[in-house]
Amino acid sequence: MSGRLIVQEVSPRDGLQIEPVWVPTDDKVKLIDGLSGAGFTRIEAGSFVSPKAIPALRDGAEVFSRIRRAPGVIYVALIPNLKGAQRALDAQADELNLVLSASHAHNRANMGMTVEDSLAAFDSIVALAADRSDVSLNGTVATAFGCPFQGSIDEDRVLSLVERYLALGITGITLADTTGMANPRQVARLVGKVLERVSPQALTLHFHNTRGLGLANVLAAYDVGARRFDAALGGLGGCPFAPGASGNICTEDLVNMCDEMGIETGIDLPLLIELSRGLPQLLGHETAGQVAKAGRNCDLHPIPA
Amino acid sequence: MSGRLIVQEVSPRDGLQIEPVWVPTDDKVKLIDGLSGAGFTRIEAGSFVSPKAIPALRDGAEVFSRIRRAPGVIYVALIPNLKGAQRALDAQADELNLVLSASHAHNRANMGMTVEDSLAAFDSIVALAADRSDVSLNGTVATAFGCPFQGSIDEDRVLSLVERYLALGITGITLADTTGMANPRQVARLVGKVLERVSPQALTLHFHNTRGLGLANVLAAYDVGARRFDAALGGLGGCPFAPGASGNICTEDLVNMCDEMGIETGIDLPLLIELSRGLPQLLGHETAGQVAKAGRNCDLHPIPA
Repeated sequence: MSGRLIVQEVSPRDGLQIEPVWVPTDDKVKLIDGLSGAGFTRIEAGSFVSPKAIPALRDGAEVFSRIRRAPGVIYVALIPNLKGAQRALDAQADELNLVLSASHAHNRANMGMTVEDSLAAFDSIVALAADRSDVSLNGTVATAFGCPFQGSIDEDRVLSLVERYLALGITGITLADTTGMANPRQVARLVGKVLERVSPQALTLHFHNTRGLGLANVLAAYDVGARRFDAALGGLGGCPFAPGASGNICTEDLVNMCDEMGIETGIDLPLLIELSRGLPQLLGHETAGQVAKAGRNCDLHPIPA
Repeated sequence: MSGRLIVQEVSPRDGLQIEPVWVPTDDKVKLIDGLSGAGFTRIEAGSFVSPKAIPALRDGAEVFSRIRRAPGVIYVALIPNLKGAQRALDAQADELNLVLSASHAHNRANMGMTVEDSLAAFDSIVALAADRSDVSLNGTVATAFGCPFQGSIDEDRVLSLVERYLALGITGITLADTTGMANPRQVARLVGKVLERVSPQALTLHFHNTRGLGLANVLAAYDVGARRFDAALGGLGGCPFAPGASGNICTEDLVNMCDEMGIETGIDLPLLIELSRGLPQLLGHETAGQVAKAGRNCDLHPIPA
């Protein structure tokens, strides 16, 4: 198996959705084009949810229509329902990312329905996308490693939801640690089991760095064979249901780790750091990313006189 | 080998030394007594360096005289030279921690002398402590995983300094990643080699979280047999020669990781979080620690109405 680690950049969706400021469409397009220019092959570029629910991303269709479609890059759209799926297909999204939660309480809070109702609705989305051979489907299991309302999540529950996705014909799977409750031992165990059912090419791990374990969890998953990881520039993101929770694992910190360890990502770290250093001006606050502040190991400091 | 992980708390020394505010002696004593009350068996309680060099710790002797000596707790003092060693012995420190850098440039910047001169001076400190069977000596190799001035550090250089310490009769060894340049693969390799020369009971790893890899590095070292780790409450600390560098790995984040993974530390996490949440008032700024902000996994959130 190749050692290459695929980073799917999610800042335009999972990062911006929680920001209180409006990021103009121009700036979103510029950010996404900057990311494809830095070497990402997968970018979650927006979502097609209700503009009332997430006003920050209400310009999803315009963003998808205006980005430069870099060859070989898959532009993913998060969708909550059939209506969103139709809008995403109209906007020429390359992949639709569906979401449900392993936790009943979180699914109701996040999606406004039961998990069974979520699954039933996905059936019609699969039917809608069936004649679009150029569009792939991905199913996310949120709160796969723990729920901020319920606490621990049974692994068999997660495995059964993965199998429900596969049975629907949804072949891409994401396990999401929505509020950063995973630990490396748990990750190694659960990811190992999921990799008995899903190939490394089809499995994505989505970690948050809420309790400082994001990159340790990446390594634990990588060591048992996982190869694709979500990350957000600057470590943007969070969860409205878990105050105090920091965001996604930070893309430039992840790429720096890979560079230092000799794991290939294909991503240009200096370009990425430059993009990240532009975020405070765009968003009006510092970000959690550390490499953008400290620099790379090879960015040496002058010896004091 | 026991799985228990020993945390040596270094905030009173490595944390406070870089803070611009003066922390009154009373508050230092209260912090250290709070730490021993939370279950630490090793606390770096202060340093005996020049008060001009590090004014924040100029009250080291008074701190050592006023702390409650909890039974079984080893109170460590950092010392730069013979004069400091004498002061630390007078103050009844249980362990003297000597420091040199693997990097020539860093040793000159940090200690004001060559590495050979540092080693020569340690000889007289060993002689001074020779008739004190109640006092142990520890030798730190700073910049063991990288230098902010020189860049990468040859592993053989680190191993030879470890052997120089051992030859001097200094049996405790710390490998310090002074500015957070280590990565988990490097850590596993170098720590594995050092553990051929030093027992897990005598080896301490000192990681900074500068580039987000602190806890991943702990796990990499733990997995090859290391059992003792420095950490600072709230992730305090830093390095004056590497601007933008964040501090030590955060104690409560480390203990939370261990608790979640079933690794015993003997430390009371709720008490630790309480102590950490008092730091902003003491220091006048937020800290980098994440668990103190987000809470433990078991600190559940209410389901939204």
